[in-house]
Amino acid sequence: MPTWVYSFGEGVADGGIRLRHLLGTKGANLAEMASLGLPVPPGFTITTEVCRHYYANDHRYPLDLERQVNAALDLLSRRTGRSFGHPEKPLLVSVRSGALAAMPGMMDTVLNLGLNDVTVEALAAESGDARFALDSYRRFIQMFGDVVMGVDGQAFEEILDDLKEREGYFNDTELTAGEWRKVIAGFKELIADETGTPFPLEPLEQLWGAIGAVFGSWSNSRAVTFRKLHGISSNSGTAVNVQAMVFGNMDERSATGVAFTRNPSTGERQLYGEFLLNAQGEEVVAGLRTPQDITETARLASRSDRPSLEALMPETYREFIDYCQKLERHFKDIQDLEFTIERGKLWMLQTRSGRRTVEAALKIAVDMANEGLISREEAVERIDPSSLEQLLHPTIEADAPRDILATGLPASPGAAVGEIAFNSEQAEKARQRGIKVILVRAETSPDDVHGMHSAVGVVTARGGMTSHAAVIARGLGKPCVVGVSALKADPVAGIITVGKRELRTGDVITIDGSSGQIMAGRVPMKEPELSGPFAEIMTWADAIRRLEVRANAETPTEARIARQFGAQGIGLCRTEHMFFENSRISAVREMILAETPESRRAALEKILPMQRQDFAELFEIMEGRPVCIRLLDPPLHEFLPRTEREVAELARTAGVAPDVLRRRIANLEEYNPMLGHRGCRLAVSFPEIAEVQARAIFEATIAAAEKLGRPVVPEIMVPLVAARKELDYVKSIIARVAVEVSETAGQPVNYQVGTMIELPRAALMAEDIAQSAAFFSFGTNDLTQTTFGISRDDAASFLPTYLQKGVLARDPFVSIDRDGVGELIRIAIERGRKSRPDIGLGMCGEHGGDPASIAFCEEAGLAYVSCSPFRMPIARLAAARAVVLGKKERLSN
Amino acid sequence: MPTWVYSFGEGVADGGIRLRHLLGTKGANLAEMASLGLPVPPGFTITTEVCRHYYANDHRYPLDLERQVNAALDLLSRRTGRSFGHPEKPLLVSVRSGALAAMPGMMDTVLNLGLNDVTVEALAAESGDARFALDSYRRFIQMFGDVVMGVDGQAFEEILDDLKEREGYFNDTELTAGEWRKVIAGFKELIADETGTPFPLEPLEQLWGAIGAVFGSWSNSRAVTFRKLHGISSNSGTAVNVQAMVFGNMDERSATGVAFTRNPSTGERQLYGEFLLNAQGEEVVAGLRTPQDITETARLASRSDRPSLEALMPETYREFIDYCQKLERHFKDIQDLEFTIERGKLWMLQTRSGRRTVEAALKIAVDMANEGLISREEAVERIDPSSLEQLLHPTIEADAPRDILATGLPASPGAAVGEIAFNSEQAEKARQRGIKVILVRAETSPDDVHGMHSAVGVVTARGGMTSHAAVIARGLGKPCVVGVSALKADPVAGIITVGKRELRTGDVITIDGSSGQIMAGRVPMKEPELSGPFAEIMTWADAIRRLEVRANAETPTEARIARQFGAQGIGLCRTEHMFFENSRISAVREMILAETPESRRAALEKILPMQRQDFAELFEIMEGRPVCIRLLDPPLHEFLPRTEREVAELARTAGVAPDVLRRRIANLEEYNPMLGHRGCRLAVSFPEIAEVQARAIFEATIAAAEKLGRPVVPEIMVPLVAARKELDYVKSIIARVAVEVSETAGQPVNYQVGTMIELPRAALMAEDIAQSAAFFSFGTNDLTQTTFGISRDDAASFLPTYLQKGVLARDPFVSIDRDGVGELIRIAIERGRKSRPDIGLGMCGEHGGDPASIAFCEEAGLAYVSCSPFRMPIARLAAARAVVLGKKERLSN
Repeated sequence: MPTWVYSFGEGVADGGIRLRHLLGTKGANLAEMASLGLPVPPGFTITTEVCRHYYANDHRYPLDLERQVNAALDLLSRRTGRSFGHPEKPLLVSVRSGALAAMPGMMDTVLNLGLNDVTVEALAAESGDARFALDSYRRFIQMFGDVVMGVDGQAFEEILDDLKEREGYFNDTELTAGEWRKVIAGFKELIADETGTPFPLEPLEQLWGAIGAVFGSWSNSRAVTFRKLHGISSNSGTAVNVQAMVFGNMDERSATGVAFTRNPSTGERQLYGEFLLNAQGEEVVAGLRTPQDITETARLASRSDRPSLEALMPETYREFIDYCQKLERHFKDIQDLEFTIERGKLWMLQTRSGRRTVEAALKIAVDMANEGLISREEAVERIDPSSLEQLLHPTIEADAPRDILATGLPASPGAAVGEIAFNSEQAEKARQRGIKVILVRAETSPDDVHGMHSAVGVVTARGGMTSHAAVIARGLGKPCVVGVSALKADPVAGIITVGKRELRTGDVITIDGSSGQIMAGRVPMKEPELSGPFAEIMTWADAIRRLEVRANAETPTEARIARQFGAQGIGLCRTEHMFFENSRISAVREMILAETPESRRAALEKILPMQRQDFAELFEIMEGRPVCIRLLDPPLHEFLPRTEREVAELARTAGVAPDVLRRRIANLEEYNPMLGHRGCRLAVSFPEIAEVQARAIFEATIAAAEKLGRPVVPEIMVPLVAARKELDYVKSIIARVAVEVSETAGQPVNYQVGTMIELPRAALMAEDIAQSAAFFSFGTNDLTQTTFGISRDDAASFLPTYLQKGVLARDPFVSIDRDGVGELIRIAIERGRKSRPDIGLGMCGEHGGDPASIAFCEEAGLAYVSCSPFRMPIARLAAARAVVLGKKERLSN
Repeated sequence: MPTWVYSFGEGVADGGIRLRHLLGTKGANLAEMASLGLPVPPGFTITTEVCRHYYANDHRYPLDLERQVNAALDLLSRRTGRSFGHPEKPLLVSVRSGALAAMPGMMDTVLNLGLNDVTVEALAAESGDARFALDSYRRFIQMFGDVVMGVDGQAFEEILDDLKEREGYFNDTELTAGEWRKVIAGFKELIADETGTPFPLEPLEQLWGAIGAVFGSWSNSRAVTFRKLHGISSNSGTAVNVQAMVFGNMDERSATGVAFTRNPSTGERQLYGEFLLNAQGEEVVAGLRTPQDITETARLASRSDRPSLEALMPETYREFIDYCQKLERHFKDIQDLEFTIERGKLWMLQTRSGRRTVEAALKIAVDMANEGLISREEAVERIDPSSLEQLLHPTIEADAPRDILATGLPASPGAAVGEIAFNSEQAEKARQRGIKVILVRAETSPDDVHGMHSAVGVVTARGGMTSHAAVIARGLGKPCVVGVSALKADPVAGIITVGKRELRTGDVITIDGSSGQIMAGRVPMKEPELSGPFAEIMTWADAIRRLEVRANAETPTEARIARQFGAQGIGLCRTEHMFFENSRISAVREMILAETPESRRAALEKILPMQRQDFAELFEIMEGRPVCIRLLDPPLHEFLPRTEREVAELARTAGVAPDVLRRRIANLEEYNPMLGHRGCRLAVSFPEIAEVQARAIFEATIAAAEKLGRPVVPEIMVPLVAARKELDYVKSIIARVAVEVSETAGQPVNYQVGTMIELPRAALMAEDIAQSAAFFSFGTNDLTQTTFGISRDDAASFLPTYLQKGVLARDPFVSIDRDGVGELIRIAIERGRKSRPDIGLGMCGEHGGDPASIAFCEEAGLAYVSCSPFRMPIARLAAARAVVLGKKERLSN
């Protein structure tokens, strides 16, 4: 019979971190803390396996679970000296979810379980505070009624509010014990009325109800959405943690708090945390009361006049610091802790790796590696490459004039400009229309996660640095400012008031998540740069990675940014972008409208010197590093005018009748341009185009080599090849031009000709094509389009439905489809190497900047990936991480 | 040292039919005839290997060729008792090309070689006819000047015409010997003036010149075009046949003729041939003189008043008949013979398999199999499946009123209607505009082949049944009427005059190649049927083939034709065609414009009964044979109106503002509809569509099964699947409807769900997809589009250039691309069988009716092919032939 239940407490535990997949992270870490000898309230964990069984078997539990739970309860009774329903020493427990992946606030929790009409009196006697006991009891009934029995939580609040109104009370604390008893009776009545079932007084019945509710909440819509957004498998399931209650709200010697072992925003090595006296943990997280600092240093820094824990309870504080250090050394990562002090006794309730900003993640990883806690490889592994994106976008210019509306807590760094949106729906709709928005809320709840995804930044009027909004924003890598108390938001009217100023839905604001400032209008931003821990991690990543990283760049500006961000060459220079430039488009159009090869060549000759200049500059900036130039790819009609005015103008300058021009434009139009007359098909139809481009490349090569004083060897890439003969045809044109240019220049021209592999047939015919290709560059955008038969331009009408219905797990244009497109890449590599073992292999689709796709490239054995200049650091890190993770995987196999 | 030269003559030969690849068909058959003891003028053949060497080595001959030619000349001298330049017994030879594949008239020929100022006198003395000898000499000089030395042939004619005009002569025969000598001097002078080189008098020099010219003509543009049109490899090369001259024009006891051992038009077993007294072979072929019949039977049938060969030279005739029978028995095929009678002595000049009409081919194959000459498998192998196409198109209604303009010789059967075109250019341009034309010429030459390809039928004013036009038209399977002497064509004016009637370019005529009639206007046609030898061959093919043949059919009419032509089921029923019908399109449009699933379903419910009726009829016609129904495939915008008038009307009937409708139409438009929102993507987005279609299918199944009294098991095909989950999603809808329908009907519904494999990803993921698919049907149209990344709708702008430049050897939309698309099919079959060994496998793209693609399907091991009803017999025969050829190939390996 499998073990369904794992107990922990009193310095021992059945499980531990190795059983994380069974115990969930929370349960595993509780067991780990217990084993380390930390004061953990004893309890037990019901495994994720039970959850999977529950869903696979029509919501039935496995055999033997009941017996194991009873045994665990017996042990828990022995450890606590308490038991369910005991009239003097009642056992009270919390029942919480705990999956492998963090899903904060997504699933259900029940606290104070075990209270009933009998045990509440025992709690009153033990605590000497009847009101506290009764308040706990009514909270439990309310929570149980809501979570387990499905009664709307608001209905309970109304009963309480009615009474308060009747009595003219403002705070809960004003209620007498007798009044609490009335409230409790009202709550019970409400449950019975609403559900037809009385509130269960039997603690064991309560327990099974709560366990069922937690398992059930695994599939509530909030949790399902969260998992979808975070790519968490629906099959992993949650564990259930049943743990003896401790109370931070028993008296003024009680407290509850949360802490990070380092600063989760900056990564500074200093304890960072908050607590509330006489409170339950939920109150700290909810951000309704402003908490106190744990350390004196932090209190002084925040100029708070409320005492720190260090000052209030120095011994407990020192004990806590000791545990913090122990846990960080043990887990080798920044820890996010929850603790409760019950009448002066410290209890550790939770530890987990702390969420942090990317800046903090970088600093912590580098520091820990330098401290010798972790290796450089581990440091590299710890950084999610995608998270770097926010560092690679502009921040606010230091000396830009700022029209500051208000200042709040800097909860997640980075700056953002956007229109104000007051709810998730507004935010999402705006995003769909391509408008950037800042989500402004009083506070956020799990229901707002969707809107936070759609927004470029988040502002809340309430809450602290560990509030829901702050934690989620840091996780998403979005700028966030919280606790902006000067700000009054009226979502219904769509108005924000800050002092005398009013802002409305759609007004533009700028926020700086690093300073906490909210500014009116659009404030100028500055380019990011690599420095400090970021630069250090990059150096380490470069030492580890095998994949070269190149940039997709056409302009000198792009090429310079690429170099600055560490590009080892240009992997894709799309020459059509050069054709679109204002000064050239008229020559390009002349070329397209030409009726004979001669007039086509004449028009091309006008473009030649400009193209030559483009290429020469790129070669010079790249200083001899590889530059891979793709010959003209798009269908010619893309260059022709669309509006009547433009057509008339072109007709005039080209000396053609507008009707003739319109006919020619109509002739060039295509049903499926993606599958039309483009790529090397242009060169086969109009060899002059390839000819002139080759001439520009070779003449630029000679000029740049002379200027640089070092050889330049361009890579010329022939696009959209489906058969070797296409490549051969274009190659022969290039070779002829090379001979002509080198004869004229009196010096040899070295170059390589290769091809994009962007059609399924090219991948399949790779052995043949490789006979003629010095290199393959996988054009995964088009390869994905043709392999799936999906046009990226048209996918919006059905791909979202596919993702929503789970028909596709991921958008294949974001992360490479390993099974289909990946299979073609593997086939192409294997076959290509058959005829050319040393064939050059790279990827230049947009997937080249996606970490998961880069990991695929590492596995597949490509030589390089090429991506947009701004994604270079992401690619460099992802490439290194792929090496580290690959090594780990091989070790574990 | 390789043997470059093979001699033949006097009952022996170095080579024979087995060396056909070296000797060419002409050379090999000459050797074969010599070996059989037939009277063949002795000679020798220079191999195709020499031709290949010649082109691979910059027009140089291999070592030792000269020695071998000299040795062969020595042997030829011994065999003939004649030698080059001998003043009394001069050796005169013909030099002719002869490739493996027949390329009639495409390459150069030189006759009477060996004549010079000395030997012409010997010929005069031997023949006792100075004028004959001098005429032969001047013809030789003219031919040599033209073919070898590049002097325009017309220039020689002008010299002759000048003299005739001066002397007032009308016929060549009026020239005196002295005048011929003057003409000869003039010819020589012309050559010297034009080329700067005197006409060579030395026979050996003449011989090498002629050999070079023949090899050179292998790559003339006419030959190159012909090879491209007929798919003949450019590397195969031609042999050169050097053979002692015999003269059919020496006197009135001399003659020359051509014959087929059976009737090449009908296949009747009767000698069929023509001859001319005192003439050279070229004259018969050119069709300038109307020839005499060989047999009395034929003479009587044609009511000719000129005597037959049988009557004129009975002994020679009997000898010839004997040879004909011998050759047919030897080659086991109808023979196309050339012979010359020189002063009463019969010489066999050539034998080869005779070109024949497809009717003749069928009758001959069936007859020969019934005669025991060949097996039924050989009979099947002999018929080119594509050639059946002409039998499968309408012929003229027997009792249709015919406005007969003129009657000529029925040179190639079948009927055609088209506009008159006077030259190849007109014909080709019209074809490109989709207009059918009848090419009308005085006579045709090899330059007209291109135009004949473009025309649907051919008419010539001159020439006989073996004229160029007749032979080529039969080869192309196009209706052809020749020798329409009543017809005067004025190509320059673009007018045909027939008696008093005038027809112009673009006027419509109808021709009947079986009766020789030319009719004004469009005459009604009748449907083809399978009977006689055609039906017999089909029965044999059905017994041989392994592949099932199904039809692509949607309407009852199509389904009935399909059954009549032997369809074993419906392989593809495209349901969208049913949606386009007039009575339904408005409901379809309502469905598309619906804003909610409910209103969409309501519109679909209107279509349901019509779809049900469609399916029920198909099931009934197919009588329990498999019917594979594809769910709706095309993008929805295809169903929406395009013109403003239609939009306005739909807006009115749908009760929508025209602007709203226009916006909705614009919204549905796609950049690349081929890769857009279609196929199963529609069903995933709008499950109601699949639901209603499934309901129509199942309800029709029950109705049809009841009516037929036998089970009906529909195959439901989900299109455009890229991932198994798409199929699973649609399958679950179908399964749900099946349960509902069967519950309502109170009886079970059996069915199969499978998928099209038409995307590369589907082929690659076949193992996974096969878990959910009962069958795969390869949709090779889309698979070719996506594998190549070529839109069929847009390919016209570059595919012709590709074929012309040899970048692609074949249009992959006509004949399946074995290397790329075929590879994906092989992968899909292998992987699909891994998870479902008995998976159903078929092909339903248009390739299903292409013989080469069907051969691929046989090799790949598909269970069936599906094609248009009219191509059924082609597919049945091609499937059988693939079995026969496959068996042969395995034997030879």
